[in-house]
Amino acid sequence: MRDLGELKERVRAFCAERDWDRFHNPKNLAMALSVEASELVELFQWLTEEQSAKLDEKQRGRVAEELADVLWFLVRISDRLGIDLLEAADTKLSQNAKKYPADLVRGDPRKYNEY
Amino acid sequence: MRDLGELKERVRAFCAERDWDRFHNPKNLAMALSVEASELVELFQWLTEEQSAKLDEKQRGRVAEELADVLWFLVRISDRLGIDLLEAADTKLSQNAKKYPADLVRGDPRKYNEY
Amino acid sequence: MRDLGELKERVRAFCAERDWDRFHNPKNLAMALSVEASELVELFQWLTEEQSAKLDEKQRGRVAEELADVLWFLVRISDRLGIDLLEAADTKLSQNAKKYPADLVRGDPRKYNEY
Amino acid sequence: MRDLGELKERVRAFCAERDWDRFHNPKNLAMALSVEASELVELFQWLTEEQSAKLDEKQRGRVAEELADVLWFLVRISDRLGIDLLEAADTKLSQNAKKYPADLVRGDPRKYNEY
Repeated sequence: MRDLGELKERVRAFCAERDWDRFHNPKNLAMALSVEASELVELFQWLTEEQSAKLDEKQRGRVAEELADVLWFLVRISDRLGIDLLEAADTKLSQNAKKYPADLVRGDPRKYNEY
Repeated sequence: MRDLGELKERVRAFCAERDWDRFHNPKNLAMALSVEASELVELFQWLTEEQSAKLDEKQRGRVAEELADVLWFLVRISDRLGIDLLEAADTKLSQNAKKYPADLVRGDPRKYNEY
Repeated sequence: MRDLGELKERVRAFCAERDWDRFHNPKNLAMALSVEASELVELFQWLTEEQSAKLDEKQRGRVAEELADVLWFLVRISDRLGIDLLEAADTKLSQNAKKYPADLVRGDPRKYNEY
Repeated sequence: MRDLGELKERVRAFCAERDWDRFHNPKNLAMALSVEASELVELFQWLTEEQSAKLDEKQRGRVAEELADVLWFLVRISDRLGIDLLEAADTKLSQNAKKYPADLVRGDPRKYNEY
């Protein structure tokens, strides 16, 4: 897979072949994305923070699958809405740089919590 | 923003400057990602499916911000775990092609529901 | 089941017998509750709003199970934190009555959206 | 607040006064419930498990509010679907007792993880 653009095209073709476009409005896709995000959370819910940073290969493979599912719906919803993900990320990084000046929020989870 | 690789580097630098690495274990990042996914859902919860496909510019801008937040944490958690997102997406697409043969699941939300 | 108080006692005994208390800190229980909430969402994600209001018996049974799972963790986390759920609900209803005066928000999903 | 039955009646009256019934189909209510669950998660995402068990009064108050919001939607969706929450919880406890025999799953988060 070369880049997000290629992924977008492949996801689009995948859905077209299955006639899923009519289910894929932004509302439904947002729901599906959040369900995939929770399947990711489920893998970590009974692990300690330390354990979550030391996954074995099997666990890491399951996490990779859930990350792929989230990305799948992220690409799909942005395609349906004509939103460029990298451009949105670029804008957001600039906003966050202003909102969270490094000198003020360094090492402070409370400020970060207000994200 | 050129690609996901550049985004990964910029997010990494952003967090290093703020000394946030110690809060960013996979467990916490999975939680944060799911919270952002829900902020996306919140934008759509009282819209009909039709309305969700016809956002005005202000709504579209807010959706773009939430998509950027989800992508931010998706890139961050995959970086912390050494998982290549595009490779994971590639693998998943191949699995899904086998799991959901176009001929069998065409236009059928119930089968798709078992995703 | 008589009331929430009895449910609290039974959930507490269930967990004590299984030695799960050490996993059941509020952070982990909040994650688990949100995962159950997403399993509820999953049942509705490809249904239309109309279909969601006309479930057959099998679907209704699955929804009841997910609602029970959410309630289970809601009761469990409030027990661990010493929070009285009905008292919290009472307080919230009073706050909401002030925050959303019937005359102002009647039939308006946008205002409600700011909940 | 006496019990869940009274809460159900008060939530029902609250929504009727505001003409919100038409937005409150099960699909939308499930989304809203999951959004509230995530607002609960947000309060814990940068706390350690230990910190989450030692909240100060202000934090505890915010958690109580989010728990109340989750309960609000839980009661509302079950009312709309004619599902008795305590009955569903009773059934689920019986199922779980069979599914997770105390002797087999004691102190084992992995088994519990398969919940």
